Formats: sequence, structure tokens, C-alpha cells
Amino acid sequence: MRIHLQSLPNDPRFRLTPDLWEAAAARAPDVSAGHVVTFGDTVPSWREAAPEVEALVTQAAMVGQLVPLGAPRLRMVFCTSAGLEKLAPYDWLPPGVALLNNRGTHAAKAGEYGLMALLMLASHVPAFATAQRASEWRPAYGSVLAGQHVVVVGLGALGGSVAGQAKRLGMRVTGVRNRVAPHEACDTVVGMDALDELLPQADMVVLAPPLTPATNGMLDRRRIALLRPGAGVVNMGRGALIDQDALCDALDTGHLGGAVLDVFTPEPVPTGHRLWTTSNLIMTPHVSADDPATYNPRSLDIFLDNLRALRNGQAMPNRFNLDRGY
Amino acid sequence: MRIHLQSLPNDPRFRLTPDLWEAAAARAPDVSAGHVVTFGDTVPSWREAAPEVEALVTQAAMVGQLVPLGAPRLRMVFCTSAGLEKLAPYDWLPPGVALLNNRGTHAAKAGEYGLMALLMLASHVPAFATAQRASEWRPAYGSVLAGQHVVVVGLGALGGSVAGQAKRLGMRVTGVRNRVAPHEACDTVVGMDALDELLPQADMVVLAPPLTPATNGMLDRRRIALLRPGAGVVNMGRGALIDQDALCDALDTGHLGGAVLDVFTPEPVPTGHRLWTTSNLIMTPHVSADDPATYNPRSLDIFLDNLRALRNGQAMPNRFNLDRGY
Repeated sequence: MRIHLQSLPNDPRFRLTPDLWEAAAARAPDVSAGHVVTFGDTVPSWREAAPEVEALVTQAAMVGQLVPLGAPRLRMVFCTSAGLEKLAPYDWLPPGVALLNNRGTHAAKAGEYGLMALLMLASHVPAFATAQRASEWRPAYGSVLAGQHVVVVGLGALGGSVAGQAKRLGMRVTGVRNRVAPHEACDTVVGMDALDELLPQADMVVLAPPLTPATNGMLDRRRIALLRPGAGVVNMGRGALIDQDALCDALDTGHLGGAVLDVFTPEPVPTGHRLWTTSNLIMTPHVSADDPATYNPRSLDIFLDNLRALRNGQAMPNRFNLDRGY
Repeated sequence: MRIHLQSLPNDPRFRLTPDLWEAAAARAPDVSAGHVVTFGDTVPSWREAAPEVEALVTQAAMVGQLVPLGAPRLRMVFCTSAGLEKLAPYDWLPPGVALLNNRGTHAAKAGEYGLMALLMLASHVPAFATAQRASEWRPAYGSVLAGQHVVVVGLGALGGSVAGQAKRLGMRVTGVRNRVAPHEACDTVVGMDALDELLPQADMVVLAPPLTPATNGMLDRRRIALLRPGAGVVNMGRGALIDQDALCDALDTGHLGGAVLDVFTPEPVPTGHRLWTTSNLIMTPHVSADDPATYNPRSLDIFLDNLRALRNGQAMPNRFNLDRGY
């Protein structure tokens, strides 16, 4: 197969290099041999490769510009991102070309970030950071995670990994997802329609679903009010999952005990935005799932897993469903 | 045996109540029956009990005032603290009376706090908190803990528990303690004299030894300079283990990547102290090991474990060594 790996210009940290490809190929010798593989990071380099390319590996940030330039033999586009909602509508994608994401790449780092956020909520770190900003010593005793009840919305690579970490530390884990089916890390799995009755029972809520019309704004002002006084919120999905202003209100009034947010509306959060001074809030700049040391290696492993499935006549596990949006 | 449990006045959260005693007694029926047990929280209540008391259970904050008031039959004093260095010199303790601490009570919570701190360092949360104070979006990619090298100084209940959590997430763990002997959670255990050659190899250092003349100021300016650029520091022991001013310098200049500190000199940290505005530093107000929901139950379990050892003619495992200071 003719494979082309196109990096962003001026992005040394996430560059898809021949070394990375060769290392991934060595890990999957059964499916990596016999291909012609090229690399580029400029539009001219793409134009040069495009007439022959059958599989394109690139970042979501540029795929919508590259593909419409024409690639008559293109069969599959593998994006090194999991959430591809910004690429909708998908009319830039020629009919019959498979779009794939790198779902699974983020699991290890995201699981550790989620565990960290739960531990920070149990130890009141968001409140202590607020006290630190005010130069005030304000002790408050925390708790261990064991026995506490966490609700994890979304049980994909991110949410599933967080659920697993929470379970290992003895938490009671309730998962929420569209398809109500058991999950190894969850004591219970319920559908999105059970969320209203679940929220008042949660000590902590972790949001990690894809952003779709069904999840957009799911944690709105009404549902935030359903949470227990002192409950904690973690968002690792997308900023638009939450009514951000309602969340800030609930943190500033003290209804919620704390929040750890990695995603926001908009990003970057502009200077002067109320988020920066909201009480009992820890912010990280959309980095919860990204580990440069393992990101591209894992993405390429997943790409090769999908090539193997294609060769074996199986469905490609990372094929993105354009209709459901994940 | 005549046992008296004396609480601090006006401390409802950590009160040693008859309910707590009865619950602990039910967990250790072999050793809890047949005693006369009394409770108090005032000096008069202690004066009333003192003539008969053989075992006193109380907080370190008051034991030095109570015992000198006289208790002729006293055989043992159990303090619901682990670090008793503030009670030195121990001349208030009558000869032959055993002093015990509650070493072990703090293990679960301290282990989770230490794990949280390591995860925060790996995800650059101290730097993000500094950026948040400045209302600035400053992304920086983190890493997973697996494969990173943590040095844990002190392998008692606190350090041992942190080492176990770090090992479970795949870290390389080197333990440092006086008595060089293997530890189940450590890949290697070395003596304090190996610290200088160890520090340049550490991604993160956790301090959790008792404060003694030998550990006082152990992480001084010279040793901080031995740490790798970008390394992280966690202190869960006592503030005086570190040259605090040198640490603040290393954080402000960016030599260190971050620090998570639970203990300080002095406490409470006064308003206006440079700690409050030091870069890349997360501060918690000496709460890393305290979990009110489990603190007194665990302390009483440990007290009863020691009563059992005494009855069986064994050495009491929590007897405090006045000479070595832990």
C-alpha cells in the first residue's frame, strides 16, 4: 500500500518521523512490510505524494485542507486525534474513503489524569489552590477514595481508563453510556436517561464522552443543581459538555466542593475570563490525554492494527462513524 | 486494665467517643474485654481519672500537660499522632512508662496523597496553577508515571505506602532509609549516605522520614542543586526536612519542575510569606495523612494491637524510641 504520513509544519514534538514509523513497523512485522511510505510537512510535499497515496496519516488540524486538494487513489484517512467533531460536516471526505481516529492512544495518560483529578477532589486541592491565591492557610480534612461513589460519563478509551483506575482504589463506579452494557471497571452501567436520578448520589462526576448533539451541554444548570453539596466535577471531554457559567456559579457559591477541568469554551481561555478567578477550580490547558513520549508510537500501532483488520477482511476497529460522530 | 481516653476540648471532629471505642472493641474482642474505660476532655475530668489510670490514650498536643499532673499507676501513654518530636525532651514522662505513637494510622490516606502528588508533578499541575494565578494559558505536555524514577526517603507507614502506590503504576522506586533492608515496594533500598549520588538520577523525590537531628535540613541547598533540571519534590514529613528558602529559589528560577508540599516552617504559613507566591508550587495545609472518617478508628485498632502484644509478653510494636526519636 502507498502510505503517506503528513505532519504539521513547525511541530517538532508531534512530528511523524521515519524513525517512529520504523519502530512501529518493527512491532507489527506481519502487516508493515511491503508498503511504500513517504513523509511530508508542507502542502507541496502533499501535492507530490497525493496522486499515489492510498492511506493518509495526519493530524485532524490539517486533514480538511489536504484531502480536498485531490488524492484519487485514497482509501483511508487516519487522524491522530480521537475527537473529530470539528471536522463535521464531513463533506470534504470523498465517498467511500474511510475516516479513522486514534481512539485508544490516550487511554494510559487519560486514566492517570482522571485518577489524579479524583484524588485532588478527595484532598480538597482545588480549595487549597484558591486559598493559596489568597495567601491564606485554610485547613480542611480530606478522605480516601475507597467507598466513594464516582459517576463516569462515557466509557470509551478515556472514561473506561478512568473507571479502571477508580475501581482499583476501591471506589464505587457507575458508568453512563448510550449502549447499556456491562463494563469490567464499573459496578453498574446505566443509560444517559438515568443521569438525573444518578447525579444526587454521586460524590464525584467525570465527563469523558464524545461531543455530539446528544452530549452538548449535558451538564447544564439544572443538572449541576442536582449534584450533592460538596460534590466534585472533572471534565476531560470537551468544554461544551458543561454549561460553564453555571459551573462557575456553583463553584463560587460553594455548592460544589471543587472541579478539575482540562477542556473549556473557548480554548485558549482568554485573559480576563471569569474561569481564571473562579473559586475551587483547577484548570489544565487541554493536556489530560497527551503524552508526547508515547502519543505517536501508540497512534501508529493503532493505524497498523487497522491495516491488519483491513487485510484480514474485518471491520477496521477505529473507523469513525460519521453519523453518530465518534 | 484501667483505660482513659482524653480528647481535646472543642474538637468534635477528632473526639474519642464511647461509640468509637465500642466499635474498635468489637473488632478486637480478644483483647478489649474486661477493661474499665473512661472518657474526658477537661483537666478536671483527667484529675478524676488519673489516680487509677494505667493506659492513657490522647493527643500529642495535650499529653505533656496531663501526665505531669500525676498518675501513679500509669504504664503506657498512647498518642494519636505519629511524629512526636515536639514532645522532646521527654522528661515529662515518668521512668518506666511506655510512650506509643499511632504509626500506621496514616498509611492509606498518605499513600493516596503521595500518589496524587506524583501524578500532579507528571502532569505539570504546579506550573498550571502558577499560570492560572497569572490568568495565562500555558500548555505543556506531561507524561505517565510508568518508567519514571522516584526516590522515597523514609519507608515507614507514610513512605512505604507512597512507594507501594508508585510501584503499582509502574514507577522505578528507590527507597532511602537508615536500616538498609529490602522493601516490597522498592526496586532498591539504599542508606542515607547514598543520597548525594542518587539525587541526580531521580525524576521525583518524596520526603517522608521522621524529623530527627539526622534528617533535619537533609534537602539543603547543595542537595537541591544536585537534582535534575525539571525534577519534582514532594514533602509529606516535616517542613524542617528542607531548606525552604533554597527550594523556593529552585522553583522560582525553574531549576525544579514543581513541588507539592504539605508541611512548612512555620505552620500556619503566615500571610506575606514568600511561599504563597513561589512559582510551580502546590501547597496543602498539613492534611496529607489525616482522614477524620478513619483516623480515630484506626488509632484505636492500633492501640488494641499493642495491648494484645503487651498481654502476650511481646514488645509493643508502636513503642516510641525516645533516643532515636521515632
